[in-house]
Amino acid sequence: MNRVIRTIPRADGAVIDGLGACGVATVHEAQGRIGLLAPYMRPIWPGAAIAGSAVTVSIPPCDNWMIHVAVEQCQAGDVLVVAPTSDSDAGYFGDLLAGSLLARGVRGLVIAAGVRDVRTLTEMKFPVWSRFVHAQGTVKETLGSVNVPVVCAGQLIHPGDVVVADDDGVVVVRRQDAGAVLEQSRAREAKEAAVRARLNAGELGLDVYGMRAALVKKGLVWLDEAPEP
Amino acid sequence: MNRVIRTIPRADGAVIDGLGACGVATVHEAQGRIGLLAPYMRPIWPGAAIAGSAVTVSIPPCDNWMIHVAVEQCQAGDVLVVAPTSDSDAGYFGDLLAGSLLARGVRGLVIAAGVRDVRTLTEMKFPVWSRFVHAQGTVKETLGSVNVPVVCAGQLIHPGDVVVADDDGVVVVRRQDAGAVLEQSRAREAKEAAVRARLNAGELGLDVYGMRAALVKKGLVWLDEAPEP
Amino acid sequence: MNRVIRTIPRADGAVIDGLGACGVATVHEAQGRIGLLAPYMRPIWPGAAIAGSAVTVSIPPCDNWMIHVAVEQCQAGDVLVVAPTSDSDAGYFGDLLAGSLLARGVRGLVIAAGVRDVRTLTEMKFPVWSRFVHAQGTVKETLGSVNVPVVCAGQLIHPGDVVVADDDGVVVVRRQDAGAVLEQSRAREAKEAAVRARLNAGELGLDVYGMRAALVKKGLVWLDEAPEP
Amino acid sequence: MNRVIRTIPRADGAVIDGLGACGVATVHEAQGRIGLLAPYMRPIWPGAAIAGSAVTVSIPPCDNWMIHVAVEQCQAGDVLVVAPTSDSDAGYFGDLLAGSLLARGVRGLVIAAGVRDVRTLTEMKFPVWSRFVHAQGTVKETLGSVNVPVVCAGQLIHPGDVVVADDDGVVVVRRQDAGAVLEQSRAREAKEAAVRARLNAGELGLDVYGMRAALVKKGLVWLDEAPEP
Amino acid sequence: MNRVIRTIPRADGAVIDGLGACGVATVHEAQGRIGLLAPYMRPIWPGAAIAGSAVTVSIPPCDNWMIHVAVEQCQAGDVLVVAPTSDSDAGYFGDLLAGSLLARGVRGLVIAAGVRDVRTLTEMKFPVWSRFVHAQGTVKETLGSVNVPVVCAGQLIHPGDVVVADDDGVVVVRRQDAGAVLEQSRAREAKEAAVRARLNAGELGLDVYGMRAALVKKGLVWLDEAPEP
Amino acid sequence: MNRVIRTIPRADGAVIDGLGACGVATVHEAQGRIGLLAPYMRPIWPGAAIAGSAVTVSIPPCDNWMIHVAVEQCQAGDVLVVAPTSDSDAGYFGDLLAGSLLARGVRGLVIAAGVRDVRTLTEMKFPVWSRFVHAQGTVKETLGSVNVPVVCAGQLIHPGDVVVADDDGVVVVRRQDAGAVLEQSRAREAKEAAVRARLNAGELGLDVYGMRAALVKKGLVWLDEAPEP
Repeated sequence: MNRVIRTIPRADGAVIDGLGACGVATVHEAQGRIGLLAPYMRPIWPGAAIAGSAVTVSIPPCDNWMIHVAVEQCQAGDVLVVAPTSDSDAGYFGDLLAGSLLARGVRGLVIAAGVRDVRTLTEMKFPVWSRFVHAQGTVKETLGSVNVPVVCAGQLIHPGDVVVADDDGVVVVRRQDAGAVLEQSRAREAKEAAVRARLNAGELGLDVYGMRAALVKKGLVWLDEAPEP
Repeated sequence: MNRVIRTIPRADGAVIDGLGACGVATVHEAQGRIGLLAPYMRPIWPGAAIAGSAVTVSIPPCDNWMIHVAVEQCQAGDVLVVAPTSDSDAGYFGDLLAGSLLARGVRGLVIAAGVRDVRTLTEMKFPVWSRFVHAQGTVKETLGSVNVPVVCAGQLIHPGDVVVADDDGVVVVRRQDAGAVLEQSRAREAKEAAVRARLNAGELGLDVYGMRAALVKKGLVWLDEAPEP
Repeated sequence: MNRVIRTIPRADGAVIDGLGACGVATVHEAQGRIGLLAPYMRPIWPGAAIAGSAVTVSIPPCDNWMIHVAVEQCQAGDVLVVAPTSDSDAGYFGDLLAGSLLARGVRGLVIAAGVRDVRTLTEMKFPVWSRFVHAQGTVKETLGSVNVPVVCAGQLIHPGDVVVADDDGVVVVRRQDAGAVLEQSRAREAKEAAVRARLNAGELGLDVYGMRAALVKKGLVWLDEAPEP
Repeated sequence: MNRVIRTIPRADGAVIDGLGACGVATVHEAQGRIGLLAPYMRPIWPGAAIAGSAVTVSIPPCDNWMIHVAVEQCQAGDVLVVAPTSDSDAGYFGDLLAGSLLARGVRGLVIAAGVRDVRTLTEMKFPVWSRFVHAQGTVKETLGSVNVPVVCAGQLIHPGDVVVADDDGVVVVRRQDAGAVLEQSRAREAKEAAVRARLNAGELGLDVYGMRAALVKKGLVWLDEAPEP
Repeated sequence: MNRVIRTIPRADGAVIDGLGACGVATVHEAQGRIGLLAPYMRPIWPGAAIAGSAVTVSIPPCDNWMIHVAVEQCQAGDVLVVAPTSDSDAGYFGDLLAGSLLARGVRGLVIAAGVRDVRTLTEMKFPVWSRFVHAQGTVKETLGSVNVPVVCAGQLIHPGDVVVADDDGVVVVRRQDAGAVLEQSRAREAKEAAVRARLNAGELGLDVYGMRAALVKKGLVWLDEAPEP
Repeated sequence: MNRVIRTIPRADGAVIDGLGACGVATVHEAQGRIGLLAPYMRPIWPGAAIAGSAVTVSIPPCDNWMIHVAVEQCQAGDVLVVAPTSDSDAGYFGDLLAGSLLARGVRGLVIAAGVRDVRTLTEMKFPVWSRFVHAQGTVKETLGSVNVPVVCAGQLIHPGDVVVADDDGVVVVRRQDAGAVLEQSRAREAKEAAVRARLNAGELGLDVYGMRAALVKKGLVWLDEAPEP
């Protein structure tokens, strides 16, 4: 049954913003290397970086009708997440829909398909992570669902999950775990800051991380020169 | 027989420029969603946007001899369209050829293969849409033809057809249809402008486009909350 | 046997810098069209252009331990070259390692796999050519070797070979050939400069290169108009 | 937390076998075009056709340790479903593991990664659907989980869901829906049988399905000859 | 305007069969290396080899309605050629349509998209060359055209052109050129037969083709042993 | 300088045959997981399995002239290894060349590009591992070299190295290491035979390999049922 769920839970706004400040790589590591969307999901302009609550759209191939339906369910701070039920490179989304989302305070779009009007989207500074850029239009004939769990670029995303996206890609954090993951992300950042200072000052990672003994134990050998072939 | 056709028809200059101003996505929609080249055709620098008359080159794989032949057939306002007879990622084109084309007033290059010297091409502001960036050189051993119909990135292009290219990709308009397509493109733009204003002001596409009844008729259901799984 | 070779030969610094100034396309042509890495090796930010001595890393899939080992073997003017023994899109490298390399004067990274923290790497102006951008982390469990010959993106690279990289991709020059290739590159540049001036002034390549007779001999025909189909 | 769940629910055996007899295309249609794995999942030998209860494995890239763990959780009639947490083309599975699974009555393997020993697997008539064939080995260093929900080739699969696989690919049916989907599949088969007889006898689909009026209404025009271009 | 052209010209049946007997590689060479469809077009079962007159279908992405329309336009000896207007991996075609085509004497299908029911199609010995195998269904909502020129897998195909397909792929021959191409193909076959006999008897191609002088002239050098590195 | 080396070292024939009997996966493991060509190298017919001494060809893109030159350097028991200097999907090789190689006792072809006449090659039982099947012909204009080290599908191959190929792909063994690798391969086979017997009899790999303690130490947890979500 195709359906639109009107009410979804959302994570705490400060937690969401905190995750966005940490960025994709840190959040992904902090939560145990899960939740990362496939690397073909790329920003259409460099430097975009957002976090928000997922409003999800399960959508047929080559048909964008349900995105129009989904706009109504979005509120400020959300990220629209669009997943075709079968691979499609069609251009589901352009500047008109972006204007509509911006009017509602939506922070960006994550779509495992194509988008168009990328120059205008860039001028509007509307953040988009997509698999394709393609001017090919879609039809409006077949239903899908809004705010159901979807698999987007290889990851399961529930409505209200936190989506973090930047130049490294897109990661999803379960809504229920958002607070804990933020803590772990900040702990990781703090640890990395200390390491970073030492590395930037010229200390070697081998020493900072104390790797030498383990390498020797595994059998690594240092030779002054390459042996004769 | 390999041949070079010296005289080709061209569309009206004002029409060509008008189509360029409308852009790829609008022109593609306006002419009934035909003529769009494959989405792997990408600009080598962002923001390039051109329209011009196609001077076409049918060229063997890994051999760029005929591009040199084609330059002589180009005039101001043209776009060079290069299609290998078999897929090739070789770098057929670099800054020397670009300088030669610029000297003749050519507006850009559309090539279903590779190009090189992209930094210099970017500095020269010479617009290129290509499938690959590759420094790999080509030979000059085998003939092809200039100003014959070619299939380029999946689309049939005749010499003199109008090629429109921007950040969304490349679309071809039959020369004979250029005037009509421009009218349809402008009509579409006008209609979109009105819609855009309403959407930017916060009206929903569901209402602007009057979609609600059709969605209900198809069976879409709105629920306040997700049902128990 | 997994090993780290401490002492590698390096080419003359002035020669390396000269090759860098010539750029990838010219060097590749000048040495007879060999040594070009696959075109999927792309810079993570446009405009980066380097040359340096290769410090090579042969590394298991999804495991970046040996990069930490390799840092210690790098000195100012080097380029780190990382080649997994089996294809991997994992993110082997991020801003911490970049800071460590910058502290040693390393000029950049060439990696036939993924990297992450690309926004920070861009802000640091640390040049990277990679096959993927991917936040997916790696483990530190399995050894590899440093400063052994590696196949990276389809090319054999020895420690101490000269690696040249720019917006056109990456090319390797055998250390022993570096001087000769620089001479040939400069000769090619000089020749191209003369040609470029003539082409920019509007002379045709057909005349500058004297191609007309060969084209006619091969059978090319110029027709004033397209024949009836 | 990495975990192995020992007890999973399974669908009724007769229902599972019934779904297998219907085949992937029919089941996929019957359940409303959901649950189909990506088309890169191909059988390693033609003609294999199975259905069974999913025992799921979430597994790190390039590491097959958890497959050994999963074998113990398999029983007769099961299908092992393996999903790396990040794309990997490594060969996770070969004839030794297949022998172990056959000894337990497992019906086959669905793996969104690589396998090896394909000649022996073919001789053993052990059915495998994989994304790659690759002799590249994996390590046994990092944990994953068994019998947790996984995303495999784009589809969410729960332990105990019914997996149907044949030459057309792989489809998953929610365990709770298996009975209903079997009924719908059989209804579809019955309907198709009647249509097939008429089509094979030379009746046109246009008439069997009664499409002519709708085509005319949409504006389709039949012309005796192609108009002049 | 979407249209169905009822009457198309066809080449002589004996010529078509003659081209089929020559096979794809020979015909492609004989007509000057043109007309070859992209190599991603593969037979769904090995050994299929056909030639026939193209009945062409231009079809929207993810919509197979027009295939049903096209069946009516097919007659014995035809090959159905289906080209989506935008890339699609959906399964447009299955065993029901195959039965319908077989009832009309159609020789096979060439489709630049996906098909399903491949086991049944194989059992029916219905020849299909497709880009994908995919169970994903299509809708029946949008019109296309039948018997108009289409670009299929990179080649322009007119209704009535001769399509030749075997394990090497698919090649199209212009209907008007079919007789001449058959003559050239047979001439090539005769020449190859003589060469084949000599090569099979152990004569070297270098001598049979008389290549030695040209190789020496180009500068090739034979050395008894590899020089010291 | 383009050159043909006439005399190359070869490994002992019995060792080569022994490696062939062990197969790709075993040899690859036995020599420490090195030497495996990329997984896109696939046999054109299933069941082919060979081993032989590499006669190597470095060849320009889209030009097969040097294969004719290489035939003369082949002797009984050799495998022809062809590597374009830049990626090419052209069909470099067909049944005429296969006949010529068979007349010399050559065991097969490994080519990181395309081949054609696959039906005839299959009937001739000539083994080929290629990246593409493509009828597209090549030219004979540009030199390459025979019996120089080449990078083929990601691996460095020297003339006289042992190439082993079967349904799992292709692996190269350094000529100097062939004897030792054969011993290691046989040792691995012996060990696997014992394991295989136990696994086929129903013992678990967890017990045969003694993995349980390590899994527990890493933190793996067995639960009787899935926890509440």
